[in-house]
Formats: sequence, C-alpha cells, structure tokens
Amino acid sequence: MTEEQINDLSINEDDVVDPWNVAGKSQTGIDYDKLIKRFGSQKIDDEVIARFEKVTGKRAHHFLRRGIFFSHRDIHSILNLFESGKKFYLYTGRGPSSDSMHIGHMIPFMFTKWLQEVFDVPLIIQLTDDEKILWRDIKVEDARQMAHSNAKDIIAVGFDPSNTFIFNDLDFIGQCPAFYQNMLRIQKCVTFNQVKGIFGFGDSDIIGKITFPSIEAAPAFSTTFPFIFGNKVVPCLVPCAIDQDPYFRMSRDVAARLKLPKPALLHATFLPALQGAQHKMSASDPNASIFLNDTPKQIKNKINKYAFSGGQPTVEEHREKGGNSEVDISFKYLTFFLEDDDRLAEIKKLYESGQMLTGELKKIAIDTITPIIQDYQARRAKVTDEVMKEFFAIRKLNFQL
Amino acid sequence: MTEEQINDLSINEDDVVDPWNVAGKSQTGIDYDKLIKRFGSQKIDDEVIARFEKVTGKRAHHFLRRGIFFSHRDIHSILNLFESGKKFYLYTGRGPSSDSMHIGHMIPFMFTKWLQEVFDVPLIIQLTDDEKILWRDIKVEDARQMAHSNAKDIIAVGFDPSNTFIFNDLDFIGQCPAFYQNMLRIQKCVTFNQVKGIFGFGDSDIIGKITFPSIEAAPAFSTTFPFIFGNKVVPCLVPCAIDQDPYFRMSRDVAARLKLPKPALLHATFLPALQGAQHKMSASDPNASIFLNDTPKQIKNKINKYAFSGGQPTVEEHREKGGNSEVDISFKYLTFFLEDDDRLAEIKKLYESGQMLTGELKKIAIDTITPIIQDYQARRAKVTDEVMKEFFAIRKLNFQL
Repeated sequence: MTEEQINDLSINEDDVVDPWNVAGKSQTGIDYDKLIKRFGSQKIDDEVIARFEKVTGKRAHHFLRRGIFFSHRDIHSILNLFESGKKFYLYTGRGPSSDSMHIGHMIPFMFTKWLQEVFDVPLIIQLTDDEKILWRDIKVEDARQMAHSNAKDIIAVGFDPSNTFIFNDLDFIGQCPAFYQNMLRIQKCVTFNQVKGIFGFGDSDIIGKITFPSIEAAPAFSTTFPFIFGNKVVPCLVPCAIDQDPYFRMSRDVAARLKLPKPALLHATFLPALQGAQHKMSASDPNASIFLNDTPKQIKNKINKYAFSGGQPTVEEHREKGGNSEVDISFKYLTFFLEDDDRLAEIKKLYESGQMLTGELKKIAIDTITPIIQDYQARRAKVTDEVMKEFFAIRKLNFQL
Repeated sequence: MTEEQINDLSINEDDVVDPWNVAGKSQTGIDYDKLIKRFGSQKIDDEVIARFEKVTGKRAHHFLRRGIFFSHRDIHSILNLFESGKKFYLYTGRGPSSDSMHIGHMIPFMFTKWLQEVFDVPLIIQLTDDEKILWRDIKVEDARQMAHSNAKDIIAVGFDPSNTFIFNDLDFIGQCPAFYQNMLRIQKCVTFNQVKGIFGFGDSDIIGKITFPSIEAAPAFSTTFPFIFGNKVVPCLVPCAIDQDPYFRMSRDVAARLKLPKPALLHATFLPALQGAQHKMSASDPNASIFLNDTPKQIKNKINKYAFSGGQPTVEEHREKGGNSEVDISFKYLTFFLEDDDRLAEIKKLYESGQMLTGELKKIAIDTITPIIQDYQARRAKVTDEVMKEFFAIRKLNFQL
C-alpha cells in the first residue's frame, strides 16, 4: 500500500464532521479526541477546568466536567481578560431548520446561558435563515418564520434580555450597514481556494454558498455591532457545536489580517440520536430525538421505544454481565441532563454491575428529562411576540466596557 | 494552422471590453459591430430609432442618431410597454473611483436624464462603492466619500429629485432587507462556474469578487425597492456603457429562473481618451480626459496639447489631402457634444476636404465643450449636502403604476 492509499484509508475511517454533515463510524459515537487533532484545537482538560473554576470562583458546569464541552481555542486569553477585569462578549447561533427544535439543539444554548451568568457579558445570537435559503429549497418568508419560531425556543432557555441581542440575517443585515461593511472586509481576505479547502466548496456550487462563511464570521467582530460596542474592539468567545469550527478557523485567519482579536472558542460534542451514537440528531426525524414541544407521554414512549440500550438480551444475562453504559443512550442522556455527579456515578455502577435493568435506567432518564422539558415549556409559553421583539430590538445592551 | 489556433488568434485580435478593462486594438477605436456579435446583443439601427421616435413622439437623442448608444437588448418590449401606457423604471450606476469624474463618465447619465424626461419614469442610480473595496486597496470610509462626491457630480447632470433615487451600496444594503434578500435569491441561481465563464474569475479570486455580480444585478429587479414599487413587479431598462453588459447577461439569465422580467438594455460606446481612440478614458490620468472640474484654461490646454489629430503633418499636405475625421479626437468629441447635425456635417466636410485645419477644429471643440462644462459646474455648485440627501432618502417616488 502506498502512503497515499494509507492516507486515503485514514480519511475514510474518520468520522464526518462539517457544518452540513455529522456522522460517527463507531457505536460509541464520534471520536472527539481524534477530532481535536484533526481540527488543531485544544482539549479542555482538568487543568483548563481548574483554571476556569479559579478565575470565575464558580464550580464548572457539568458540561465542562463531563467533557460535553470538550475542546477550545484560546480560552486562556478570555480567562486572562476576565481576570484583569476586562470585558468580552459571547456569540453563538443557529441555522433554523424546522418549526420545533430538539433537545440536542439546546446544549450550546444551555451552556451559553451559564457562561453569560458566570461572566456577566453581552451575548449575541445569530439565526442564519439566509443559510437555509442557500442550502435548501425554502422561500425567504418561510425561512424568516422558522428563525422567529426558533428564536422563541432559544429565548425560553432563559436568556437575559438586558444583555442579549438576537437577530436573523434576512432582516438584520438590511438594517445594519456595519454588518455589510464587515462582510466585505472579510470577503476581501478570503479566496475561493481557501473556502474550497476549509468547506469543500466546488466550481458548481452557487456563489451564495461560497460567500456565506463571511456572514457567519462577521458577528465574531465587535465592530459589526456599533449600536452595542460603539467603535470599541471587544474580544469574542464563541460557544458552539464542533461542526461550526471551520467558520471560526476562517474567522481567526481573517482576524489576523484585519488586525482584530481572534475569536476564542468552546466546542461541544453532539447529543446522540435516540437510535444510537453514530448520528447527530436530525430535526426532520421526529423519532430520532426528543423535541422541545413533546408531551410527557411522547417523551416516555420515545425513550422506551427508541433509546438504544446497552443492556443484555435477557434479564439473566444482564444480571450476570451488566449493561454497557458506553453505548446506552438513556445513560448518555443522563450525562447531559442529570446534574448530580454522585447520583450519576451510582447509576453507572448499578447498571454496569447488572443490578439495574434497562427498563429501570430508562425510567430514570424519563423522570430526569420530563421535568426539564416541562419547565422549559412553561418558560416557552411566556415568550410572546412582544418578548421576542425585545431581544430583536437594535439597541444598546446593559454593558459597561 | 488548426481551427483552434485560428480561434485563438481571433480572440487575441479582439478588443478587450469587460467591466475592468477596455482597450481597442485599432486607431479608430473599438470595433463595436464586432462586439455586438460577440455579446449577442442587437444593433440600434435606423428601424429601432424610427420606432423610438414614433412611440415617444420625440426626436431621437443625438447619442442614438449617431450610434453613441449603439446596441440594445429587448428595447422593443420597453417601447411596447410605453405604447400600451404601462410603466417601467430606469436603472444605471457607477463604480466611484476618484474624487472628480471626467466627461466620459457623464455620457450614460446625460442619456439617462433624457430617457427619464421622455418616458417620465423613476430612475435608480447605484454607486458601487463596495466594488471599489473589493477591487482596490481602498478603505470603507474613503470609498463612501468617493461615492458621495460622485453622487453630487451625477445629480448635477440635472436629474429630477421627485423620481430619482440614488444610493451607495456600503450604506444602503444595510438599510434595506429586501436588497439583501434579492441578493440571496440571485446568488442561489448562479454558480462559480457561471461567474468564471462570464467574468473570468478564478480560484485565487477573493469570495467578495465572486459574489459581487449579485449586487449589481439586484437593482434590476423592482422587488429590491419595496419603498418605491411596493410588491409590484415592474420591468427595468438599464442604460449603461457596453462594458457593464456581462452583469446584465447574468441578470437576464437569473430573471428567467426567478420568473421576473428580464432587464432591457441600451449600450453606450466609450468617449475615447484625448490621446486616441484605443483607450477608454482613465480617471487616474488627468491628461487623458477633460474633468468635470476643469477650468476653461485647462480644457483649452488639454485639447490643444493632447487631443489626437487626424490632420496632416504640414499645412500644405493638409490642404491637399484633408484631415481624417475617423481618428481625430476633437472631431470625435464634437460627435458627442455638438447637437447640431448640420453644423457637424459641415465641419466634417470642411475638415476632410482640407479647408479646415486642425487648430480650427480644436477651437470649435474647445468652444463647444467649454460652455457645457461651465453650465455643468454652475449646476454642480448648487448641489449641497442637503440636495444630495434628498436623492438618497429612502422614500416613495413621484410615480403611479
């Protein structure tokens, strides 16, 4: 075998993780350590977590403690800023894709809310409804509607309207000359060859796709939002799922060219589909995930019916060999949603030793997730058009540089 | 020689005419008939001119009569609309490139003003200051300043503020969501392969250039300006120099895909540089052209010193052989600026017969152009910031569909 063939093989063996496709090859899901090497980011290890806790004086979020946010770029420069009393801002986003979001979509937003509270900094959320126009057969009006509906779902995570600005591209770019001007500055720094390399675009791709990365990059620079930051250059931290990293690798290259601070990043893993860890959850398959508008009955049925089990074929065998928590989706969901570390460790022990059966584990998952969704739904019910407008208003945020 | 080599040769022998380069190979300038064949447009012949006069009830502008506007696409559908009492709108523009414009830049605007008066239709003028950011080493602030200064120069041609809207991209795109939404619709219809074929872009071009054609195309669709046209689909006529045709070939293809009317076109030739007809005038060479802010003395000196002469080396030889009005720049300028057909024919006869010397012809050119520039400068002096703001205001125009 030639070296080239070996390289080809190693590419074929890799998990697929880019902004449009996420697919793991193994039953345990995506190999995130390998991804860190491939993307050239840094692992969030015990040292990073310890520094996080020291600098903020708060216990690290369980998403950090459990490796759900597993990778970073330049988080130390953000922690340095905070330590020296200087400000930064948070930027995250979402490409709206259906009327209701699933719980996997919520992970970066739940963590972002925590970051906003811990650091007391402004947060900007971009809804890339324009991306949907370019990649899907969706009309402008429908994409805007999805963005607005998704915005309400996001607001219900519990963001603070006094320092959170949410926008959808289809409406906002046409209301903010500074956004378009920064798009141009970015577009001037990036060639077709570069987006070809980073995103895999080809000659038969539409020109809208080719230029879209400038639109996801622009909000990583504070000068895009003069109504919030004036002309001040304020560094940016982007919490996001790892599949969005290519946009910010590009943004960081551009930042160097524009003499602006490189955005720092915190990367999340994906909540697996109920059917197993090989896939990111799909918003178009109602049975692949728990949706934010599912009823308790639907949640119960979905977990009981679809959540992939790491248990043994028979009770006897299970009692003898124990369950496999590595591949068990109910257990995996508990690592995302059960905050109590001791309880989680106990469940793991009971399940792996065979003392706890799959049905019992599923019940715990149902009992953990259902009230979270119900609380969420109670908040969601209060997000009226007026509340949404408050977040979308182009305005100053409660924020002193 | 193979057929391929012959084709290559014929390409090499062609004049260069694209949005960024214009260069004729011959002393008589660009071969516009050949260009019509290459671009696939239609010649403005006597029949078209006769129909123009019949439909409008006005004598055709001397730019039409003399082949200065020489080519069109679909002008008959615009004349049909006008005949049946239906409306259309005019769209033209300019890529600002220096503080003062030269008289060559004025040709499409002088003609557009006449069209606006004859048809009584709204006019939209785009200043592509964003294009300058992408193609040149110019800062956003400087490009905006150039656009505003050029806008005043354009306004001074004599446009009617009640039905003329002028905008610069750097400010307007960020104030009009419909513009960005139409950009996206266009970007979705055009691949990299297509802009490569139409504009010659390559893999090492910046993504801003690759997507820019969507920005020049958007104003050719009335839905880009809801504040003027509401949601009505109104056909568009674009008077422009022939080098801009590639943008509108693309726009016409896109129109078919978007089920919108294809923009119609009227194409102008170029006013040649003083030094000879091989070149379009350059805004960066002060001696290549007469600038709109030149003094009478400068105009006199430039024409006397630089205007390429079709005369003979000695008076004796000139009296004997006569001058060559085909290559004489002073005569060429008279075809652009001397409206009186009889007088022009008389001058041609006198010059070609040798009765009129180069110095006498130059004097007529100076005496014709100087008052035109002086009248222009008097109007220009009245274009204050307030007048400019009136044209830039996002507003309804005086226009009933």
